[in-house]
Amino acid sequence: MSEASISIKHLLGLEHVSREDIQILLDTGLSFREVLDRPIKKVPTLIGINIVNLFFENSTRTRISFELAEKRLSADVTNFSASSSSVKKGESLKDTARNIFAMKMDGVVMRHPTPGAHVQLTEYVDTVVINAGDGTHEHPTQALLDMLSLVEKFGHLDGLKIGILGDISHSRVALSNIFGLVTMGAEVTLCGPGHLIPPHIEELGVSINTDVDEVLEWADAVNVLRIQRERMGVGLIPSVREYRQRFGINNERLARHKKEIVVMHPGPINRGVELDSDVADGDQAIILDQVLNGVAIRMSVLYHLLGRQAAGEEN
Amino acid sequence: MSEASISIKHLLGLEHVSREDIQILLDTGLSFREVLDRPIKKVPTLIGINIVNLFFENSTRTRISFELAEKRLSADVTNFSASSSSVKKGESLKDTARNIFAMKMDGVVMRHPTPGAHVQLTEYVDTVVINAGDGTHEHPTQALLDMLSLVEKFGHLDGLKIGILGDISHSRVALSNIFGLVTMGAEVTLCGPGHLIPPHIEELGVSINTDVDEVLEWADAVNVLRIQRERMGVGLIPSVREYRQRFGINNERLARHKKEIVVMHPGPINRGVELDSDVADGDQAIILDQVLNGVAIRMSVLYHLLGRQAAGEEN
Amino acid sequence: MSEASISIKHLLGLEHVSREDIQILLDTGLSFREVLDRPIKKVPTLIGINIVNLFFENSTRTRISFELAEKRLSADVTNFSASSSSVKKGESLKDTARNIFAMKMDGVVMRHPTPGAHVQLTEYVDTVVINAGDGTHEHPTQALLDMLSLVEKFGHLDGLKIGILGDISHSRVALSNIFGLVTMGAEVTLCGPGHLIPPHIEELGVSINTDVDEVLEWADAVNVLRIQRERMGVGLIPSVREYRQRFGINNERLARHKKEIVVMHPGPINRGVELDSDVADGDQAIILDQVLNGVAIRMSVLYHLLGRQAAGEEN
Repeated sequence: MSEASISIKHLLGLEHVSREDIQILLDTGLSFREVLDRPIKKVPTLIGINIVNLFFENSTRTRISFELAEKRLSADVTNFSASSSSVKKGESLKDTARNIFAMKMDGVVMRHPTPGAHVQLTEYVDTVVINAGDGTHEHPTQALLDMLSLVEKFGHLDGLKIGILGDISHSRVALSNIFGLVTMGAEVTLCGPGHLIPPHIEELGVSINTDVDEVLEWADAVNVLRIQRERMGVGLIPSVREYRQRFGINNERLARHKKEIVVMHPGPINRGVELDSDVADGDQAIILDQVLNGVAIRMSVLYHLLGRQAAGEEN
Repeated sequence: MSEASISIKHLLGLEHVSREDIQILLDTGLSFREVLDRPIKKVPTLIGINIVNLFFENSTRTRISFELAEKRLSADVTNFSASSSSVKKGESLKDTARNIFAMKMDGVVMRHPTPGAHVQLTEYVDTVVINAGDGTHEHPTQALLDMLSLVEKFGHLDGLKIGILGDISHSRVALSNIFGLVTMGAEVTLCGPGHLIPPHIEELGVSINTDVDEVLEWADAVNVLRIQRERMGVGLIPSVREYRQRFGINNERLARHKKEIVVMHPGPINRGVELDSDVADGDQAIILDQVLNGVAIRMSVLYHLLGRQAAGEEN
Repeated sequence: MSEASISIKHLLGLEHVSREDIQILLDTGLSFREVLDRPIKKVPTLIGINIVNLFFENSTRTRISFELAEKRLSADVTNFSASSSSVKKGESLKDTARNIFAMKMDGVVMRHPTPGAHVQLTEYVDTVVINAGDGTHEHPTQALLDMLSLVEKFGHLDGLKIGILGDISHSRVALSNIFGLVTMGAEVTLCGPGHLIPPHIEELGVSINTDVDEVLEWADAVNVLRIQRERMGVGLIPSVREYRQRFGINNERLARHKKEIVVMHPGPINRGVELDSDVADGDQAIILDQVLNGVAIRMSVLYHLLGRQAAGEEN
């Protein structure tokens, strides 16, 4: 693996992560991507290191992806989900966190509904903290895996034209992608219903275009966000049918453009809403590559944040 | 362990599994049964192999039995249950499965309410798939552990007379046992309320007899199925009291027959309904042997389906 | 670790555990406490040993603390919680236990709402049983970690003056502390609402004083119990406000006494009820030390109860 080391101690978001750090994480991610093609995908990097996965929200793929990454690095893994916890008894995040970390966990991967919850954590403890999603704020490993998938496909990020489609206002995937892609020199255009694009977001260095066909004409790749059905028809998002008509990605819409375009989705897909099955399962989609790259990039993040501690014992 | 290898790539059910394959699985199961009598019951067979236990239905013993078998073979284990998953968000089996397998799992053990769900899985992915129960269809490792317990008790299956008692129509345990036992040369008689025995099931090579006392007189062993209380008194099954009177196994009923008969039950037992406590905890019952053999036969299945992949790295 | 061995085969409670055994467990706990200060906190003591954590009640810290202790000793760990189990299907403790132990688990850590459930377990199986809380009866590892924290702070237990404050009648933490502390020669005074102190409890060798200020004046340390909010205002405990006023520990109350006093709490804390935040997070509190000592003492218990079995294979 890479000899280079990153400057951050935690992965709280991509907002303040440097281009150099992201580059190192992506390079190491590519190396781990190769490990995943071997019959035995396990390496001894984090033997003896304890990681707790603290999920205060339901998650299939993110939790399993982290757990696999941890186990493939030979770490010891403890899972904790809110539903089986004394959080129910009204214990605060602060007390839960302090107690769990008092046990001398080496690392914590946390998903929490409160934006900024992870920053708060780092104030209580000196455990390494990795953000697996904090409300509508950031989801940095998702953005890193999206970038790793783009690098795998295009060989570079600099100058790449990326459209991000959907409900930008409520998407931590969008925000982390914006921070990461802009830092890495990509051009980003946001597209979705006007009232679901935050005001002043251009100040982050992105463009806005509410015409999805123009974005498809322009972009090298589009990242299609999941539409939260619970927001449908309550004023924020029109009906499924209307959303699909105006913003849904399907073969008829793609056929209007000569250019081949790469289609990404963070999952789970609402098939027939933001993305049709024939596109999701077709040649332009790299959605399953994203999933595999998720494991690789999480191995990279864990390696860089916890590997030195693991090696400390050996030296 | 056995040098012989089996011809199947997945364990989806026993319907199409050959006598040779079943014999190899049982032989290796007996070898692992001996490992389980050692102080240290762990072997390094599956080091570096990732297995995910995907349970879309609640289960105590089957999930724990598989997990123990996996850990005693030194595999890395990830658990996933529907209650903490995005299945709740309406994600389809197809998407859940494709995403999980895209992470390059080596094996998946799945329980799913839909008959045939596992066959569907093998179409999406090349991960090894093991059926831990698919609706009312099959539960092949349960039938294998039942057969292993019979072999341990009688030394052979060929010519053995087995009664299967209860709600045959809704029992995956019954169906897998029928397929397996008939393939191995045992004689099988089904017994239960007439409307809970599927029409034309004799075509599978079994007999039907709705008089439980005649079956007890005839059989070497009876496999007493769990009655689903949720089916009681809704037209399908009469009251608990009436069921117990007509089909329940208790000491008074067994005392009418001179012959010693072996009593099996897949658990969990409805004590006092299909089986009385004095029988379940008595000398004729081999119910706890079944439980232990469950771990041994699952180790055998995992060894044969995943062992070569694990060894591939070493060679 | 210590060469001394303890005389008990299970840890069901502290009621009948000898002073010698408790001393050995505390000594080894201090050794493991040092292991927890190393970069790599894992030792190979229980390689190949299977432990199941059976939690029939919700728990955050106790379950995670045991799991960490087990993994840091290199045991294989299987988690089972009532919410994902066939206990829901009405299976009895007896059947669940017998089935799980029939799989030849080496050790079981169980939390169960029924007082005495663990004693019952040892009648069915020869697996090592560790009580992680049985209703309002005992919680022996909590009392051991409290004692380890006192030893760490004061260097000894003999002659130490300990106040236990709160709802003594419903507290397994209180009862295990009483048994352990009295055995080790400490002086114990119970303090709380009069009707929440069991009659005749002085026969266990403790004093009662319902004036919390007198107890604070007397004690070297106080163990502040969690008040169960579900018991508030239903006749047993007055309102939160009234409880806080009469028994709550806060800086104003502590300031009335010149003496420095050590404050303990088993968590989770009801901040502002039995304990105020400025005390819980202040210099007198050793609450986070208790949490860390919990992992150390559980490693000690597991080492003494299961270590010989693990070593058996090596010799």
